[in-house]
Amino acid sequence: MMESITAYLQTHRDEHMEELMAFLRIPSVSALPQHQPDMQRCAEWTAASLQKAGLEHIEIMPTNGHPVVYADWLHAPGKPTVLIYGHYDVQPAEPLELWETPPFEPIIRDNKLFGRGSTDDKGQLLLYVKVVEAFLKTQGTLPVNVKFCIEGEEEIASKHLPAFVEAHADLLKADSIVLSDTQMHGPGKPALMYGLRGLAGFEITIEGANSDLHSGLFGGAVQNPIHALTKLLSSFHDENGKVAVEGFYDRVIALSDKEREAFKLVEPDENKVRKDLNVRELYGEKGFSFYEQTTSRPTLEITSVSGGFQGEGIKPIIPNRASAKIACRLVAAQVPEEIMDGVEAHILAQSLPGVNITLDRQLRGNPFITPIDDPVMVAAAQAYEAAYGEWPVYTRSGGSIPIVEVLGRVLDAPVVLMGFGLPGENLHAPNEHFHLMNWDKGTETISRYWLNLGAMSTQYMKN
Amino acid sequence: MMESITAYLQTHRDEHMEELMAFLRIPSVSALPQHQPDMQRCAEWTAASLQKAGLEHIEIMPTNGHPVVYADWLHAPGKPTVLIYGHYDVQPAEPLELWETPPFEPIIRDNKLFGRGSTDDKGQLLLYVKVVEAFLKTQGTLPVNVKFCIEGEEEIASKHLPAFVEAHADLLKADSIVLSDTQMHGPGKPALMYGLRGLAGFEITIEGANSDLHSGLFGGAVQNPIHALTKLLSSFHDENGKVAVEGFYDRVIALSDKEREAFKLVEPDENKVRKDLNVRELYGEKGFSFYEQTTSRPTLEITSVSGGFQGEGIKPIIPNRASAKIACRLVAAQVPEEIMDGVEAHILAQSLPGVNITLDRQLRGNPFITPIDDPVMVAAAQAYEAAYGEWPVYTRSGGSIPIVEVLGRVLDAPVVLMGFGLPGENLHAPNEHFHLMNWDKGTETISRYWLNLGAMSTQYMKN
Repeated sequence: MMESITAYLQTHRDEHMEELMAFLRIPSVSALPQHQPDMQRCAEWTAASLQKAGLEHIEIMPTNGHPVVYADWLHAPGKPTVLIYGHYDVQPAEPLELWETPPFEPIIRDNKLFGRGSTDDKGQLLLYVKVVEAFLKTQGTLPVNVKFCIEGEEEIASKHLPAFVEAHADLLKADSIVLSDTQMHGPGKPALMYGLRGLAGFEITIEGANSDLHSGLFGGAVQNPIHALTKLLSSFHDENGKVAVEGFYDRVIALSDKEREAFKLVEPDENKVRKDLNVRELYGEKGFSFYEQTTSRPTLEITSVSGGFQGEGIKPIIPNRASAKIACRLVAAQVPEEIMDGVEAHILAQSLPGVNITLDRQLRGNPFITPIDDPVMVAAAQAYEAAYGEWPVYTRSGGSIPIVEVLGRVLDAPVVLMGFGLPGENLHAPNEHFHLMNWDKGTETISRYWLNLGAMSTQYMKN
Repeated sequence: MMESITAYLQTHRDEHMEELMAFLRIPSVSALPQHQPDMQRCAEWTAASLQKAGLEHIEIMPTNGHPVVYADWLHAPGKPTVLIYGHYDVQPAEPLELWETPPFEPIIRDNKLFGRGSTDDKGQLLLYVKVVEAFLKTQGTLPVNVKFCIEGEEEIASKHLPAFVEAHADLLKADSIVLSDTQMHGPGKPALMYGLRGLAGFEITIEGANSDLHSGLFGGAVQNPIHALTKLLSSFHDENGKVAVEGFYDRVIALSDKEREAFKLVEPDENKVRKDLNVRELYGEKGFSFYEQTTSRPTLEITSVSGGFQGEGIKPIIPNRASAKIACRLVAAQVPEEIMDGVEAHILAQSLPGVNITLDRQLRGNPFITPIDDPVMVAAAQAYEAAYGEWPVYTRSGGSIPIVEVLGRVLDAPVVLMGFGLPGENLHAPNEHFHLMNWDKGTETISRYWLNLGAMSTQYMKN
């Protein structure tokens, strides 16, 4: 079956490239109001492309921002349903003068397609559309049921998608979710990013006397809110770089030996990191590598601190308040609200006479993980291996892509991040491009992935 | 002898009041450039007044700011020399609308003289001039040698006086120094302020990586300068509120039982202080009262702290730098430079990997003390008791009047702060006034003080 699909994709490759270039010519910059008509035009183009591929129930669905394009094909009874997430919006192209060819006039050079959105995410998204088309044209059917959810606000933090997913959870329900908006580890080196950190952000304010006080007349006899704050803040970590808040690590899923082993293939050279940052030494929780610390261990980082006179020179006062903002990066299965409960209990347990302390909870984002031995992950890895001749590496990121966690949690399905971009393809920068080797390998990988999923026992299917 | 002096002062009281009011009519506001001609006029007025009293070698001496007026009378061989310090400049009068009568149109109501400068410091300064006049007119001589050093920049931090004193140390040399620019403890309650705190001000800056870092991608593996700073700052105090910098207290002159006893007469009600500041409890070094903590014990106060994004919301970064400014209030015989050496050693002794720390020494002011059993202090106390019928209370201030320490140190002579102002006389505020009871008692006290000094053994004379 793969042969006829591959043959179809090869035969129609020029036509598909023309289509992708048409997609790239629409300057669908979600961040800039002057591109509002382009956003609508791009949603319509996306819908038409899905229709041409043979998808059904195509709908441009309104949100409070840019619309979502939905489509499905649900004629594989007894087979799992895969939700494909992608986005049709792109980053602003500025600074224009740094582009070698205009950002919205796509061109192929050295088997690379240049243009804004080529790798992020129009090129990677269209892979799925063309795989649907190839299956339906050559087989008349798909090995799985598919649903597409394509948003227009990924580059502006997916502002309205969480509410959309909540509101349309029935429509979007699936057994697994896949998206291609991340990177491979290198040319010919596929990667499955299976974990992202979450976030708990809060502000601590400490207030003392009812006004700033003269440090000569009161210094030494009144609690200084900065003293109380620095004492409190310094209590958040122990001597080994661990967070000293009770229960902080309780829900952390320990790394398996297999994961730690897998990280050895991808982790950066710590000496190079140290030199790049120009620090004498790195510093973090003992017993973990740099890569483990930044991707798989939670942290509590004081991101800002403020108190007293902020101008030039020394104004000798005891300020009446001081504050700090803190961002905890969380890993599965920590819960932001629980972490902030723990911080609050930690604060209450400190002895800080003469001041009042308030905690203002501001940010919450759940961590994300799909275990690497989840059947859909194994199916994805096998597909990669068949297409690229290499088993993928497993990566985690220390940052957050909140929508990934929202999709997985609300739809209660594992999410597979199957990147086909390459490092150095300048996403968000001038001269963005997409290496077309990964167009060909990408369609093959996705085709094989769906065949693998279709052949799997249905025991893992939830819906 | 006192009788004839007192009689002279009584007889000429109206005339002296007219003179004081003429002095007050000159708006010698040192801070405002438009009063430059008034400053010159006031210096000339002061010189003329000194001449009229019988003083000699009168000179209006230039500085890089407003001039200093000098005069002396040195015809008491074998007797000590007293340097009288005062200032002819005044605070701005604004807000003018809050004055019941215009600030530069002095008027006597209820035996109080209202007008800018009446108590701070023209009224208190003229006491000395009139005592000289009374002695010379009635006795033809003075019991001591006297020198006057009257500056025009006290209200702008005595900007050029330290250099002036250094440059003219020979001219100004004296066995003791006296000034009346402080307050009594209350009506009829004389006070000798015998101690002021000094200052050591510095800034600590901690730098980490060569730029701000994404807290997701680097959080947990790179030392956060705010973490290092809070750890360092929290190490400066121990659990008992004591400064934990080694050697910090080494030179502190312990309070004598006599001093602690004396403080009981002047220390504020701690419960009232607590309520005024609206704090649940006061907090300071254990084993010392509020008054002792704020006047006679050194402190290390973090006056400001800053690091990371200072705008609205949480920007999840690891900032590349964080800093704090610190003001140590010092007591005799601490040395600012030594204290900062100690802080530097303390910093070097901390284990703070992955960051660079710099210490920038910015402010230095020596503490001041004249022991209460110094012969000149005893002579002053006896004079007060004779005039007021009450032995003075002994007070210390937690603030600093740098010029007091400079005069004492450079001229190597004890300084007596012999205040005749009253609390509530609105110095620096609208409706400044001077209670004329303290004009009469003041001239008597000063006369008796000089008689006491003149009668003393010359063994304490240095020059």
